[in-house]
Amino acid sequence: MEILYGHHPVKEALRAGKRTIAEIWLAHDKSSPRLNQVEERAHANDIALTRVSSARLTALAGSERHQGVCARVSGFPYIGLDDLMKDKKEAPADRSLPVCLLLLDSIQDPHNLGALIRTAYCAGIDGLVIPKDRSAAASPDVSRISAGALEHTRLTRATNLVKAISALKSEGLWVAGLDRDGGDTLFSMDFTVPLAIVVGSEEKGLRPLVKKNCDMLVNIPQVGDVDSLNASVAGGVVMYEVFRQRQVAGSA
Amino acid sequence: MEILYGHHPVKEALRAGKRTIAEIWLAHDKSSPRLNQVEERAHANDIALTRVSSARLTALAGSERHQGVCARVSGFPYIGLDDLMKDKKEAPADRSLPVCLLLLDSIQDPHNLGALIRTAYCAGIDGLVIPKDRSAAASPDVSRISAGALEHTRLTRATNLVKAISALKSEGLWVAGLDRDGGDTLFSMDFTVPLAIVVGSEEKGLRPLVKKNCDMLVNIPQVGDVDSLNASVAGGVVMYEVFRQRQVAGSA
Repeated sequence: MEILYGHHPVKEALRAGKRTIAEIWLAHDKSSPRLNQVEERAHANDIALTRVSSARLTALAGSERHQGVCARVSGFPYIGLDDLMKDKKEAPADRSLPVCLLLLDSIQDPHNLGALIRTAYCAGIDGLVIPKDRSAAASPDVSRISAGALEHTRLTRATNLVKAISALKSEGLWVAGLDRDGGDTLFSMDFTVPLAIVVGSEEKGLRPLVKKNCDMLVNIPQVGDVDSLNASVAGGVVMYEVFRQRQVAGSA
Repeated sequence: MEILYGHHPVKEALRAGKRTIAEIWLAHDKSSPRLNQVEERAHANDIALTRVSSARLTALAGSERHQGVCARVSGFPYIGLDDLMKDKKEAPADRSLPVCLLLLDSIQDPHNLGALIRTAYCAGIDGLVIPKDRSAAASPDVSRISAGALEHTRLTRATNLVKAISALKSEGLWVAGLDRDGGDTLFSMDFTVPLAIVVGSEEKGLRPLVKKNCDMLVNIPQVGDVDSLNASVAGGVVMYEVFRQRQVAGSA
């Protein structure tokens, strides 16, 4: 079990229904439409609810950013790569868009991971893959930074990202690595195919073996010659270019 | 005077040449190609350079994120809105793209401001306008977060953002406000015209009067229904859609 905190994570965990929620604590001196929503949903789902002091919430959360609400929940429900792919193949017939996954190669900053998860959810990405080692992972803090989007996210932890890439390729996905020095510019790519986008860490970019196993490398064109875009902005620009192309293709 | 710290801010301040640099301090126990670059440029520009302890750098910077280098520099050189517009009108004849400015309505988080400045520089935005009050402002921390892009940025502080919008309109710019609930979707807009994009704060979006004075409102389409994109990602997506449209128009 772990402690989620903040109204977005707790509200989205309630909505998503993927975690077991054992107990919810609300600040006894706070009231807001958002906290009322949480309270109503907790009652509807028959979840134990306790009013406590703000200091107690801070102690439970291990952070002052609890916004008056904490929840004791089961650990984040990762799914296997097989399930990520199985669901893809079993997509409803009315699903007109080809799959698009996001692979994160060693993003270590929880802020970048949370921001990327948030954007992926907004942009309709079907699932994410992160490596088991040397990567930020799902945590209450990442859920908070993602504005609760983590709670809805289909997330796989891969022991070996290169093997995961091979598996995705054998399922018919095209794997596009974001690389500041390489390949073609973003806007010349065809992103209407079944796709996995790989985003590397801000410091080091893609690891050599990961880069080598991509079908194609893509760069985001830049005018100014400072260090490149930060990882969460770069990922956002790519995900929304995918979104745009598919929207245009869908309306053509 | 103020203290810049970190190799990006100091290196870019040296390259940009917009600030007076009175003195540079380097860690006496650190050596790297990046610090050597700073040292060479300091010598070339006849700037006093002192080797000090890492603890002394931390004290100077007021932060441990100095990466072995600090510089005492003149305050950030804001320019007036008139200068921002004058430069625009005096742009060289070979400048084929219409102007694009970024206006930030009350972004209070230095991380969002720094990330937006970094992306604006990468995406070739011509200048930024921020309000004087209730906004994060240029600071050594923002320079660090922007990876030094701040040092190259043409930045105006407006006493009244609504008046600034009026002035830009009278100069022939179209003012497009980013609004999660309003207007047309990003991808249906024509961004090849002279343009000012307005991005609001993450919490509150655009203020009512700012919104009212925009020529058009633009939303970024979303699939997932969590809270919207964070301000720096949303700004990045819009700036790169402007970039894309102008690239396509330029190559047509």
